Amino acid sequence: MKDYIDTSDFTKEELLEIANLGILIKKNLKAGYPLNVLYHKTLGMIFEQSSTRTRVSFETAMTQLGGHAQYLAPGQIQLGKHETYYDTAKVLSRLVDILMARVQKHETIVNLAKNADIPVINGMSDYNHPTQEMGDLTTILEHLPEGKKIENIKVVFVGDATQVCASLMMTITKMGGTFVHFGPQGYQLNEHFQNIARENCKVSGGSFLVTDDEEAIVGADFIYTDVWYGLYESELSEEERKGIFYPKYQVDMDMLNKASSNCKFMHCLPATRGEEVTDEVMDSDRSIIFDEAENRLTSIRALLVYFMGKKEETTKICKQNLGI
Amino acid sequence: MKDYIDTSDFTKEELLEIANLGILIKKNLKAGYPLNVLYHKTLGMIFEQSSTRTRVSFETAMTQLGGHAQYLAPGQIQLGKHETYYDTAKVLSRLVDILMARVQKHETIVNLAKNADIPVINGMSDYNHPTQEMGDLTTILEHLPEGKKIENIKVVFVGDATQVCASLMMTITKMGGTFVHFGPQGYQLNEHFQNIARENCKVSGGSFLVTDDEEAIVGADFIYTDVWYGLYESELSEEERKGIFYPKYQVDMDMLNKASSNCKFMHCLPATRGEEVTDEVMDSDRSIIFDEAENRLTSIRALLVYFMGKKEETTKICKQNLGI
Amino acid sequence: MKDYIDTSDFTKEELLEIANLGILIKKNLKAGYPLNVLYHKTLGMIFEQSSTRTRVSFETAMTQLGGHAQYLAPGQIQLGKHETYYDTAKVLSRLVDILMARVQKHETIVNLAKNADIPVINGMSDYNHPTQEMGDLTTILEHLPEGKKIENIKVVFVGDATQVCASLMMTITKMGGTFVHFGPQGYQLNEHFQNIARENCKVSGGSFLVTDDEEAIVGADFIYTDVWYGLYESELSEEERKGIFYPKYQVDMDMLNKASSNCKFMHCLPATRGEEVTDEVMDSDRSIIFDEAENRLTSIRALLVYFMGKKEETTKICKQNLGI
Repeated sequence: MKDYIDTSDFTKEELLEIANLGILIKKNLKAGYPLNVLYHKTLGMIFEQSSTRTRVSFETAMTQLGGHAQYLAPGQIQLGKHETYYDTAKVLSRLVDILMARVQKHETIVNLAKNADIPVINGMSDYNHPTQEMGDLTTILEHLPEGKKIENIKVVFVGDATQVCASLMMTITKMGGTFVHFGPQGYQLNEHFQNIARENCKVSGGSFLVTDDEEAIVGADFIYTDVWYGLYESELSEEERKGIFYPKYQVDMDMLNKASSNCKFMHCLPATRGEEVTDEVMDSDRSIIFDEAENRLTSIRALLVYFMGKKEETTKICKQNLGI
Repeated sequence: MKDYIDTSDFTKEELLEIANLGILIKKNLKAGYPLNVLYHKTLGMIFEQSSTRTRVSFETAMTQLGGHAQYLAPGQIQLGKHETYYDTAKVLSRLVDILMARVQKHETIVNLAKNADIPVINGMSDYNHPTQEMGDLTTILEHLPEGKKIENIKVVFVGDATQVCASLMMTITKMGGTFVHFGPQGYQLNEHFQNIARENCKVSGGSFLVTDDEEAIVGADFIYTDVWYGLYESELSEEERKGIFYPKYQVDMDMLNKASSNCKFMHCLPATRGEEVTDEVMDSDRSIIFDEAENRLTSIRALLVYFMGKKEETTKICKQNLGI
Repeated sequence: MKDYIDTSDFTKEELLEIANLGILIKKNLKAGYPLNVLYHKTLGMIFEQSSTRTRVSFETAMTQLGGHAQYLAPGQIQLGKHETYYDTAKVLSRLVDILMARVQKHETIVNLAKNADIPVINGMSDYNHPTQEMGDLTTILEHLPEGKKIENIKVVFVGDATQVCASLMMTITKMGGTFVHFGPQGYQLNEHFQNIARENCKVSGGSFLVTDDEEAIVGADFIYTDVWYGLYESELSEEERKGIFYPKYQVDMDMLNKASSNCKFMHCLPATRGEEVTDEVMDSDRSIIFDEAENRLTSIRALLVYFMGKKEETTKICKQNLGI
């Protein structure tokens, strides 16, 4: 695959390979060895919506790898408006080395990738959020409960079926773990996503459940949540969303304790403290949210290196530097 | 000349020198040799309008040459508003190494260049588009019909007398070729530009014609067009522009064939497919539009190197790398 | 101190150390020796208002030191809105190496610094402008009247008690010089700032005066002014501000001559020529405004190096390069 649009295009082994490449590069950089594997290369970043975490992670990653990221802000480039997707993709393929885009509609990123001659990375669409997925896989690998493998973990996503919920499902079911979406009816993963889960589990031996029964959280190694206000056109008012999700789907210490004594808390951030999660959970030692945020950068470095065809070279350099 | 504001300030030989410098740097980079001739240098990019191609080309160019381009977006810097041109130019001369600007009014870029102590490059005004000119000269040099020199080519610009039309005229007449503007009355190159063409041809031995007679396209080596909607304040509605230009001035395969069996198609992009040009032409093997887009970058690298006084050093390094 | 929020947090010796570090780095770069002490490091720049000088200076500085500055434009990051200061600060601490912010309210920069695990630099708030202070200290050191030490100079700020006025007072009184704010009642440094001046003078042996008596400018080595229109919500109309400040507080050649035959003119820029200062003064050889603008960059390089813990290394490299 030339592009990173949907983790469904990749095998379990490939996804783990990228996650582990990220962990290796992180070790190399934390040990103080600079990298220049993308020396003088340019990443074009197209944003149809604002973003902090994703944009900053991509831009820092390019700097750390010896290249540069161009920020094409919302409104500065009009995909499919003054110019066809085809023409924009062909032109940018001549002017930069790799592209990422955060888009309003998933078909935009699919079109861009299809027409571009260079690699394209999906920085979130209305369908999925695969760079978040890779960061979360990395974080879970680094925080596996003692003695457990990725195939044995149970991950419960609490609340609204956002893109992050769908993306997390895709990763966990592909890895062979147990995934639960604990959310109210009408806000649960839809049939399309449940089919993906089903197919993934057939191959991986994993299992999944979509439910509004709180008992399903028992035994969770990780509880994950996201904001309730939805995204894009269909944003809910505070009153509406509280009416739907509160208090049953708020992650508090009782919920964590009910899951397991060792259960970790994850959130893609930004969080609306006091809505989907309490301050106590956010700030507890069970919370791994800032490690998770850092791993956006960790995994984006790996994705850039992997899709620019620098996996072998980078692995060799890092191992040499680290003496492993 | 300290600045690149108008190709009329330069001789044929100087323009060819810059174009050929760009071609040499492109060969060097495609062969995998990095360049650092603008190491740690900063280009300030002032945009009074949005831009994709020009901005991305300048930013990529600076990265590839070891420097960095700062994007000062529309509204982020107010030339001649809160501060005089003089003060802005003097201050930026202390804080960056070279400037480019895309401006609403040509006098703005002239004022900026006059007052700045550092080189200033015109990234398009309401008068001309000299970085497009240099890119187009480069593309034409690379696609010269077999056995023809630049002095023998015939270039026909079809449609509205945009800045790109005027700029192309300036280049072709200066080179000594034949330039035709085939466009409807009221949308033809004005007397001011015809005078420049006349003066250029006197020196170069070239010729030019402004006409609405379709027969003038016969024998063209290159047919070039641009959008019909005009720019800035005077933008035309779709209905208005079709009334003026359609179907006579739409570039289609019949027109290309009428020109010559070998005629190439050029467009500065973005294109409104189905208006000034058909899909069939855009996507045919006669179309060199994406080479042309890439040469925005090719020529901008050369302009940066040339006006930063690094021509000799860069030429030497590239020739050494390439063994020529 | 991890952060540079307020010069009141630093001793006279520390401030002079940073200023002199800046002068040394400037010499090194002007002599053509590149620096890479912030190699592959990332500065996050948060702007709640637009800025030219501060933003360009920080971005150029990072490039010159081997790193990169990310420009997070107004509206692109919502401090304290969709996310708490705490969460934003913790996340950015994982994704970049150092932060600067220009903020609407001083408490924002204080909060950011308190919660961040990385250094934070105040790029101007509604309270003070400490990077301007450091640049001005640098400029004054470079333009000391012959035979005078920093402790013996007299600096008169004319006009409105802007953040720049307050910041200049903090520096000059800390250095042990004489500071005068010559401005109309109602627009003079308030009691809070006068207390700081008083405390500084106790330690330093300096003196200060706030007055509307023109005689106070006699003997000034430097006259400094700033625009009259205020900042943020409380912007004055041209008529209002002229009614308050004109003509008594306009800096003209008569005022400069009354100060001393050698008195230099400073302005943080942008200037409204014809309001707070005449063209004649701006363009005279007594004006050191463009040296002052350049020293925004000079001092910001030093602040970045200092707060990234690279003072010793940088000093050593520069002295070695320069043979001193």
